[in-house]
Amino acid sequence: MSFTAPVRDQRLTLDSVVKISELANGPDSEMVDAVLEGAAALAEGEFAPLSRSGDTQGARWDNGAVTTPRGFKQAWNAFVEGGWMTLAAPEHHGGQGLPFALSAALMDNLNAANVGFALCPMLSMGAIEALEQHGSEELKRDYLPKIVSGEWPATMNLTEPQAGSDVGALKTRAEPNPDGSWRITGTKIFITYGEHDLSEQILHLVLARTHGSPEGTRGISLFLVPKILPDGSRNDLRCVSIEHKMGIHASPTCVMSYGDHGGATGWLVGPENGGMAAMFTMMNNARLNVGLQGVGIAEAATQRAVAYALDRKQGVRNRLPVAIAEHPDVRRMLLRMRALTMGARALAYYAFGQVDRGVRGDPQAVLRADVLTPLVKAWCTDVGCEVASLGVQVHGGMGYIEETGAAQHLRDARIAPIYEGTNGIQAADLVGRKLGLDGGLAFDELIADIEAETQHPGLIALTDAVEIAAASLREAAPDDRLAGSYPFLTMCSVMTAGWLIERMALSEQADGRTKAAADYFLSVVVPEALGLGAAAEVGAALLYTVPAEELA
Amino acid sequence: MSFTAPVRDQRLTLDSVVKISELANGPDSEMVDAVLEGAAALAEGEFAPLSRSGDTQGARWDNGAVTTPRGFKQAWNAFVEGGWMTLAAPEHHGGQGLPFALSAALMDNLNAANVGFALCPMLSMGAIEALEQHGSEELKRDYLPKIVSGEWPATMNLTEPQAGSDVGALKTRAEPNPDGSWRITGTKIFITYGEHDLSEQILHLVLARTHGSPEGTRGISLFLVPKILPDGSRNDLRCVSIEHKMGIHASPTCVMSYGDHGGATGWLVGPENGGMAAMFTMMNNARLNVGLQGVGIAEAATQRAVAYALDRKQGVRNRLPVAIAEHPDVRRMLLRMRALTMGARALAYYAFGQVDRGVRGDPQAVLRADVLTPLVKAWCTDVGCEVASLGVQVHGGMGYIEETGAAQHLRDARIAPIYEGTNGIQAADLVGRKLGLDGGLAFDELIADIEAETQHPGLIALTDAVEIAAASLREAAPDDRLAGSYPFLTMCSVMTAGWLIERMALSEQADGRTKAAADYFLSVVVPEALGLGAAAEVGAALLYTVPAEELA
Repeated sequence: MSFTAPVRDQRLTLDSVVKISELANGPDSEMVDAVLEGAAALAEGEFAPLSRSGDTQGARWDNGAVTTPRGFKQAWNAFVEGGWMTLAAPEHHGGQGLPFALSAALMDNLNAANVGFALCPMLSMGAIEALEQHGSEELKRDYLPKIVSGEWPATMNLTEPQAGSDVGALKTRAEPNPDGSWRITGTKIFITYGEHDLSEQILHLVLARTHGSPEGTRGISLFLVPKILPDGSRNDLRCVSIEHKMGIHASPTCVMSYGDHGGATGWLVGPENGGMAAMFTMMNNARLNVGLQGVGIAEAATQRAVAYALDRKQGVRNRLPVAIAEHPDVRRMLLRMRALTMGARALAYYAFGQVDRGVRGDPQAVLRADVLTPLVKAWCTDVGCEVASLGVQVHGGMGYIEETGAAQHLRDARIAPIYEGTNGIQAADLVGRKLGLDGGLAFDELIADIEAETQHPGLIALTDAVEIAAASLREAAPDDRLAGSYPFLTMCSVMTAGWLIERMALSEQADGRTKAAADYFLSVVVPEALGLGAAAEVGAALLYTVPAEELA
Repeated sequence: MSFTAPVRDQRLTLDSVVKISELANGPDSEMVDAVLEGAAALAEGEFAPLSRSGDTQGARWDNGAVTTPRGFKQAWNAFVEGGWMTLAAPEHHGGQGLPFALSAALMDNLNAANVGFALCPMLSMGAIEALEQHGSEELKRDYLPKIVSGEWPATMNLTEPQAGSDVGALKTRAEPNPDGSWRITGTKIFITYGEHDLSEQILHLVLARTHGSPEGTRGISLFLVPKILPDGSRNDLRCVSIEHKMGIHASPTCVMSYGDHGGATGWLVGPENGGMAAMFTMMNNARLNVGLQGVGIAEAATQRAVAYALDRKQGVRNRLPVAIAEHPDVRRMLLRMRALTMGARALAYYAFGQVDRGVRGDPQAVLRADVLTPLVKAWCTDVGCEVASLGVQVHGGMGYIEETGAAQHLRDARIAPIYEGTNGIQAADLVGRKLGLDGGLAFDELIADIEAETQHPGLIALTDAVEIAAASLREAAPDDRLAGSYPFLTMCSVMTAGWLIERMALSEQADGRTKAAADYFLSVVVPEALGLGAAAEVGAALLYTVPAEELA
């Protein structure tokens, strides 16, 4: 099957949800079309053809070197030569300065076409933001233009064996050199594209501790550690192995060893002990982008399932043989897939649009983006898994056969709820920080905006339920708040996506499919979320009546 | 990690849900314990150690022969020599005649320990029933004792490339021989354990059409087609390839070609054109057993996740480092996994117990088992997928690494909602046939039993909602009924499982974990199912407002 970029849906979402024409210094309508069509051609022409072979071949490790699957190098070159890395990057470092909402459309397509490949540019995008916001002028001058051009891809090095969700437990050390650089020593795991053959240079952003730093997250500093040093020599760092994973086989997940021979040379990004702020800049970008992985995989899975269901004949309706797409329960699955995909896209693009408004000086939009980030990361990736799983189901027995491609979507989708902060961490962020942001106003204004706009009784009921749950969680003890955090996050996400998809359906540009998807979302998905109200307010006592070992 | 058979839960379920002591000619309490302990030892000692290596090595095909993973032959021998195949088989054919509810406990364990292996005995169990109920005395005499002993495993051959859910479209042909046997010609796909090296003989139960038979399912006949003919020669049948699947790698999924050299010799099972009845005997058995795959995989995934969450330290509580099992959202996932597993086990064992009561002459129990079969097959397999996916999530990044084993559970679980009638077919069976069975009484009596027993307000509310939805679906047009069938099935399943798990929690034997799991199920899972009411009654018009191709 061939992937077709959902250009019409993307344009409708940008127009009616992001309202991109309202963006200060935003692109004109022709530019939006040009970007969408160019991104579509790139994803369809270069990335999609390598998805299945990339899964089958996988990345391969040999004595510290990593070989990406056949064709990846050429596709990466096409990406770089097309200037796609520059899209939303700052103009004074060689970028085009276009809205992040447009880069969302680009990444949506790349994720749909080949998520194992799209991870490489995705991480560079976060690095650009982190360096731009926290790096010294010298570092920016020396490194940013080549990350922006795509010549030097970048990575994020946070996790260590004992420090996953608890990043404050990391042990990698940094010792100062007399020339102002640092010697980095330690082992990082789960480093996406930590080593590969797409480029000569790879720039690693590495979290480490300096001597005498405070314990926990307050004592963490960020370093830029290039694979190739400015004098052309190899830095003291090495990929010691890659993981054998359930999916995203094309993406090398590396164990990186720094300083086996005395220390890898790196430079501080931001102040000493200020690594968490820089990391959150990268992370927030990456979290929104991981949400887009859910959207992209859902899009690809939906297209594949619809194509199969139109082609596969089984059974009869009105005594005539029919394609399975005509059977009510198969049609239900297809419409659900489309509705969830559209809703997730609306939520994700909207959040990117809020980032754009924030960058352009709207402080309310900064807060709105903060509130939305955990929803986008968690719910859109849950949607990716659900839609990919429905896609397998639509294919029946063929869905379980790897050659069909439906199973790959599910295997690829399953990582997204885990990395860049597990979805449980997102839920904790929502109830622990975002619900109280700006004295609670940031969250309450989202509710108020929805209440002011929606006409749908089901959505009004859900918004009321979210308001009640929010009030109760705000007063709850920390454990009770956390106990209800995940279902509460789902309720908030469905509420927000429902609001946006209703807006899409009411737009003048809306076609029949958008209206059908919105109708399904509001009539079926929204009431389901209402059923989570009890779980959101259930409290922690229920969870701790027996010790965990008794649950085995 | 090592698997520990859930003997206490099984005993509690058999006592309080199945009420096995009430079964006429049932086993005494010591016999129940002996079977549970023997099945536990078999699963833990022989099957579980081969699960991961079975996944890694997979079954291999070479020129028509299939090699199972290392150790499978010895484990199969242990299964046969222990007499496990004989457990619930009829005594006059060499079986022990023990309740099916005890074989449910056996299969629950084997599925948990190694589902790719357990498929082999599972299919033989269905074949025993089909032959026993529909075969001639001669066929039974010649074949049943050796299927019952386990020496001759059996397979089910239904699917063809153009005939999946629409089994009536099959084209395999049978021509009569003068000696009363038949010549079978055709290709069957998705044949589990269609070829292997566990035994010399393999018995294939094959659906085919005879000359002049009516179209569709009314013209299908069942044949027994042995790999080795009574004279010791090879029959004209061959495994031409095996599939490359997402999971259950150890289980060979075969393309079988019959009659490449003139016709495979087979014998009619039941009357000509009576194949569907025999097939449904096999299928109903297999559907309940596939439900148990969901239960078993959920059990294994839960045990693995709890073990990991107790071992893995991340973060602090009250300023002290803790295992992640202590964090509220991780604990929520663990408790949810346990509650869903317990609820699914209760529902499945209860259905097996109704089969036992039916066999012993209770006609109401036959109808109850009929109503429950689609719920067990569909909901328990959905639970298997959800729990396995939660298990991956509990492991964080490690869950996505194949060596951990959590991902294998999800890959293995994903087939169960598909085969032996997709879960959509189960939902159609529920609303199309089971809801109206015995003039609707069979379904209504289930509701009445629940209403008479439950004390839980949430469950009472769900039962009311199911009653309302059932009334509305009964009056609805066929498409509207099918449109709501899947959410309706989930509501019915959660209602029934909720009733049974409440019964378990109120039993004198119930321990703290059972009470905690039941409390979670009733407080959280039951209200979620209430949220599906809108979807159950939404109707088909919503699904057909745009042609399916517009959903791509």
